[in-house]
Amino acid sequence: MTRLNWGMIGGGEGSQIGPAHRMGAQADGNFVLAAGALDHDAQRGRDYAQRLGVAADRAYGNWQEMLAGEKGRDDRIDLVTVATPNSTHFEITKSFLEAGFNVLCEKPMTMTVEEGEEIVKIAKSSGKICAVNYCYSAYPMVREMRQMVANGEIGKVRVIVANFSHGHHGDAGDADNPRVRWRYDPAMAGVSGQFADCGIHAMHMASFIAGDEVKEVSADFASTIASRELEDDAMVNFRMEGGTVGRLWTSSVAIGRQHGFEIQVFGETGGLRWHAEQPNQVYYTPLGGRTQIMEKGEGGLSDEAGRLSRVAIAHPEGFPMAVANIYVDLAAAIRGQAHGAFPTATDGLRSMAAVHYCVESARSGGAWVDARPALLR
Amino acid sequence: MTRLNWGMIGGGEGSQIGPAHRMGAQADGNFVLAAGALDHDAQRGRDYAQRLGVAADRAYGNWQEMLAGEKGRDDRIDLVTVATPNSTHFEITKSFLEAGFNVLCEKPMTMTVEEGEEIVKIAKSSGKICAVNYCYSAYPMVREMRQMVANGEIGKVRVIVANFSHGHHGDAGDADNPRVRWRYDPAMAGVSGQFADCGIHAMHMASFIAGDEVKEVSADFASTIASRELEDDAMVNFRMEGGTVGRLWTSSVAIGRQHGFEIQVFGETGGLRWHAEQPNQVYYTPLGGRTQIMEKGEGGLSDEAGRLSRVAIAHPEGFPMAVANIYVDLAAAIRGQAHGAFPTATDGLRSMAAVHYCVESARSGGAWVDARPALLR
Amino acid sequence: MTRLNWGMIGGGEGSQIGPAHRMGAQADGNFVLAAGALDHDAQRGRDYAQRLGVAADRAYGNWQEMLAGEKGRDDRIDLVTVATPNSTHFEITKSFLEAGFNVLCEKPMTMTVEEGEEIVKIAKSSGKICAVNYCYSAYPMVREMRQMVANGEIGKVRVIVANFSHGHHGDAGDADNPRVRWRYDPAMAGVSGQFADCGIHAMHMASFIAGDEVKEVSADFASTIASRELEDDAMVNFRMEGGTVGRLWTSSVAIGRQHGFEIQVFGETGGLRWHAEQPNQVYYTPLGGRTQIMEKGEGGLSDEAGRLSRVAIAHPEGFPMAVANIYVDLAAAIRGQAHGAFPTATDGLRSMAAVHYCVESARSGGAWVDARPALLR
Amino acid sequence: MTRLNWGMIGGGEGSQIGPAHRMGAQADGNFVLAAGALDHDAQRGRDYAQRLGVAADRAYGNWQEMLAGEKGRDDRIDLVTVATPNSTHFEITKSFLEAGFNVLCEKPMTMTVEEGEEIVKIAKSSGKICAVNYCYSAYPMVREMRQMVANGEIGKVRVIVANFSHGHHGDAGDADNPRVRWRYDPAMAGVSGQFADCGIHAMHMASFIAGDEVKEVSADFASTIASRELEDDAMVNFRMEGGTVGRLWTSSVAIGRQHGFEIQVFGETGGLRWHAEQPNQVYYTPLGGRTQIMEKGEGGLSDEAGRLSRVAIAHPEGFPMAVANIYVDLAAAIRGQAHGAFPTATDGLRSMAAVHYCVESARSGGAWVDARPALLR
Repeated sequence: MTRLNWGMIGGGEGSQIGPAHRMGAQADGNFVLAAGALDHDAQRGRDYAQRLGVAADRAYGNWQEMLAGEKGRDDRIDLVTVATPNSTHFEITKSFLEAGFNVLCEKPMTMTVEEGEEIVKIAKSSGKICAVNYCYSAYPMVREMRQMVANGEIGKVRVIVANFSHGHHGDAGDADNPRVRWRYDPAMAGVSGQFADCGIHAMHMASFIAGDEVKEVSADFASTIASRELEDDAMVNFRMEGGTVGRLWTSSVAIGRQHGFEIQVFGETGGLRWHAEQPNQVYYTPLGGRTQIMEKGEGGLSDEAGRLSRVAIAHPEGFPMAVANIYVDLAAAIRGQAHGAFPTATDGLRSMAAVHYCVESARSGGAWVDARPALLR
Repeated sequence: MTRLNWGMIGGGEGSQIGPAHRMGAQADGNFVLAAGALDHDAQRGRDYAQRLGVAADRAYGNWQEMLAGEKGRDDRIDLVTVATPNSTHFEITKSFLEAGFNVLCEKPMTMTVEEGEEIVKIAKSSGKICAVNYCYSAYPMVREMRQMVANGEIGKVRVIVANFSHGHHGDAGDADNPRVRWRYDPAMAGVSGQFADCGIHAMHMASFIAGDEVKEVSADFASTIASRELEDDAMVNFRMEGGTVGRLWTSSVAIGRQHGFEIQVFGETGGLRWHAEQPNQVYYTPLGGRTQIMEKGEGGLSDEAGRLSRVAIAHPEGFPMAVANIYVDLAAAIRGQAHGAFPTATDGLRSMAAVHYCVESARSGGAWVDARPALLR
Repeated sequence: MTRLNWGMIGGGEGSQIGPAHRMGAQADGNFVLAAGALDHDAQRGRDYAQRLGVAADRAYGNWQEMLAGEKGRDDRIDLVTVATPNSTHFEITKSFLEAGFNVLCEKPMTMTVEEGEEIVKIAKSSGKICAVNYCYSAYPMVREMRQMVANGEIGKVRVIVANFSHGHHGDAGDADNPRVRWRYDPAMAGVSGQFADCGIHAMHMASFIAGDEVKEVSADFASTIASRELEDDAMVNFRMEGGTVGRLWTSSVAIGRQHGFEIQVFGETGGLRWHAEQPNQVYYTPLGGRTQIMEKGEGGLSDEAGRLSRVAIAHPEGFPMAVANIYVDLAAAIRGQAHGAFPTATDGLRSMAAVHYCVESARSGGAWVDARPALLR
Repeated sequence: MTRLNWGMIGGGEGSQIGPAHRMGAQADGNFVLAAGALDHDAQRGRDYAQRLGVAADRAYGNWQEMLAGEKGRDDRIDLVTVATPNSTHFEITKSFLEAGFNVLCEKPMTMTVEEGEEIVKIAKSSGKICAVNYCYSAYPMVREMRQMVANGEIGKVRVIVANFSHGHHGDAGDADNPRVRWRYDPAMAGVSGQFADCGIHAMHMASFIAGDEVKEVSADFASTIASRELEDDAMVNFRMEGGTVGRLWTSSVAIGRQHGFEIQVFGETGGLRWHAEQPNQVYYTPLGGRTQIMEKGEGGLSDEAGRLSRVAIAHPEGFPMAVANIYVDLAAAIRGQAHGAFPTATDGLRSMAAVHYCVESARSGGAWVDARPALLR
């Protein structure tokens, strides 16, 4: 089993997402960082790539160079990760797919629904993998919940309640802080602020666990800090194809919540609760019974949860391992082996549609809107 | 300080709410149970009252007898508690107020907004106390949160998130269970199921802590079990007079939640979190600081929190003491002493208005509706 | 069912324990405060008693007056609660028992083992009730654990781990604080500080839940603040008659712990965990299974847990209700009705023996010592 | 910055500890697995090493071959990890150190104190790194606690309470289960069972955080399952050089605890609490103040905690990253760069001494015994 060659665009020195991808790709020894265009400053990017062990001729100054350089090689990269600013995801992902590369794109995959539809089509026609990094779905206990729902262990799902909130943008004095400001400025962030940033993770997870898709949405967006044009607090009610009722709250002004991503799934015969800050437990309550604490690594879990857990029960596994699990599945897919349900371009498209239709609903006072992308109706 | 004479209507043997009121009224020695019409079966009610220590001539067969009997006495009751089925609250409360008695009414105070407005007017003209048992507001740490908000310790309140959910009506097989069925049958429960039952507690608390009132609502109601006409899961977005954004979720099919009443209050300079199942702690996070665990009974709390706490720090106080605190404040008010902000007929009216306007919003697809009773606009 | 007459010695205005007893005795309407000698200042005590509703002729200046006054009455008190300073418990308890009164004594019942043995003998010969207020044992979920062990639901108990620690005496600057200092001064506190104050609660609970008694102890005591003669941190290893291994840690310098009384019981086929700050849940793990969260008020609990729970599931009940449960059982016993296992003089004696033998062990470098009082071997 | 060559002995296919080391070594791209003797079955070990990307000539059949092969190479491994059965640690570690290799040895480093002293001497004379994998000490928030203590933020440490307990050996029916049985058989496990397996982690952490060493111990060991010769439940009281009082409980029959490693540190002016199952938070209480929840990744933490944290606040990091942190520090040390305080042979020796002197104390009824290895007194 030889290692796969891996390339990275963006994620340069000092970025937060870069190390998460490198740990994720390298942790299991599946991938070797073979090529990179890591920084918008070409020279800094080349230097850093080489310090990370990339050969000089594959330490590129920008993604166009990298595309050109890799296309011609026999040992071309098996996978490229796109971790650049959001507005560039579409063009880069498109270009690499069309050139026959497998791609893992950071979220959001695109800025518009139309771009999303285009990526889905290209991915399909190219026959290449186009994955999107909704990595929460790769926690072992999230896969376990999905499996439990699929097995009917909680019956038909009646209600899903998902919250993804933090308070890190709660300081009105941050109006000029460039790391915060852009998220609420339509010129840079597009049509949505907090919902597009965090809410779509929660919505993807609702679909992932339920094994169903969002059909309609009714949204209430609020900008609680006067200087913000886009919402920093949003509530989305939704209905899934199968009738499940959804409640999704997301906020960036929830002072005291750190990264409060919590999801609760209530079915006819049981309920499930999971919290991203303590990702190794699921609270499961059968109808009429007591709440049980399920532990990652315990006996009797699904193959899927077992496969994605690395260390023994009660040895916590965290976010870096969730990212690593995405890479585990991608490596398996590239090698033609069995793998789990990693998020794809279709998921990326659905998220974009959710963003746009929630904005439409919020702008019309909470009216119910069909949230399905036309391509997938 | 002589004890006050207390009467009770409803709350007979085997009821759940009866013992809570008796413990609440008696725990501090303020009230003596002097009169009662405890049961719809007159003889059972008389017997039980006497077993509880009520003299034979004040152990009444029904509330009409009790009203007639007490009216003529020099030692007439100082307070009557109305703990009968919901649809009778209006008539009994009205009658006793008009006869010059102080009343503590169980929630909901009335079945319609019009009745609520009438009670408010009668209470005002009578000069008597009309309280409603929103007893969660009497927990020491809830009073502390209210005081912190009033003091500006978290700045202007931006967002309130309140959840009040349980899963005890999650069994579809309960369609014929009389203790469950009536709640979802308009003939018995009125226009709303779960929101009227639990949601209004949460909405009252939002107003109570914020020191502000709900102005507009947008609601999404769902009946997740086919046999139910009324909602068993509801989401209400609201805006307060001062601009605060509200998110209120309530459900009775949330299997695994026992009595999950949780409220989070996010202001400009801090956040608060409180959970009714662990009522002696508040999680407080100042902007830019760490979350602090506030404990009932700790040094430096407000006079109000201190006054309503009975035992030392970390000795938990629960629901019976919250009810008792309502009675402590009522005793003080009856005696003309200083007391805290117990809920009144105005609160009862606002709740009814919230129920009716949320129903209206839900029926019109989530449209935003003014939720203020006409009398209070 | 007439109310019982109740008297109280100590627990005057401003005391912490007084209100807890008054709420406990009155909450269920079983007892009426009929007599009292509430304060070491006779006049203050008489005044306060009358303000609490005691008739002038039964508002006594001291316990001797009260004993004399009550002895001669036809309506003499049915129960007297002794809530005076520790060193007076023995004499008062003895005197009232000998005069034919039922007694509930605060812990510790006596200051020496010999005194404890004398009380046990007097209680026996008098035929009167002598209870000791180990009120943690009256929480519904503690009774449930006791019942589960008795039913063999976790098999033979192998290990009990009990911690009762707080940090409220952690300030070395409190050397002159009279509310703290006396606890570590042998002239006032006797032979033990923190173990005698909190540790014996934990040891009583271990015996109560296990349904077994402590046979041998090995103790390590430490005075972590230089000015203290008696221990402020203690570890006691013990063995029970049936072989159960015990680990008991108690501390008053554990800054950050509020009142951390936690007990874990590990048997052959299951484990239990309970925490006094969240007393309405028990964490139960069957061998080879998942941890289950048991809730006060859930279906299927023992009659004992059901009987002592007052409000519905997930409505928390706290310390005042635990004290009230002791009074519920005492009222039933006085009336000759069935009741639960309230702690008696025998428990008070065992505690004293534990204190003295732990001190002996600690002084001899942790040697194992027989901890059973001679009277009960 | 070229990658370092890394070799591994033990940790073959199916082992639990192997993947943890490979993820740890590879996650940050510091090490490449260049050589291995992974399995006691030579052929399986060679095959597996090659599947992991090791060149055929460095996929060895056993450690002796590996030692011989690597010694002669210019590109010899920069670090060897020893993850073989406990009884072989001494010989392998000794041999590689003597041959001039840096070594990371799994715990326990040796089976006897004498062997431990020999390793310490050899490590010193060789000038090579000899590290021991007490990886809990590499969690960012554990380093933070150590730094806080060193800074005097909680004053002189009075009491440390450490618990490391699980219930995975609680089934008496496991008497013949080879994965459990050997731990309680002196022929295979040496003089101690649970204390040597888990207790020494807790004792190392107590020393690590306090910045002090254990001086004296008093132990109580119990074998709660009849078939076991060695202890499955142990309590160790200790005193540190600086006078700190220690309480350490460890158990393998604590059914319901998964991997309950918790440590509390109480000083003159504050307390700290950390739990290995939720390793990203520390509960810190200043004297007289409220408990604060410290979060990995929050602003204002020490450089050490910042350096070892990889992803943003509230993105949990778990056990694999703690192991990775040991490798981060080892890589830095090998490269002559600044690094944190990874555990060394001296720590390995102290642990062995603790094991042996605790056994001695337990055998003599809890007598206090000097626990310092002669070499370090």
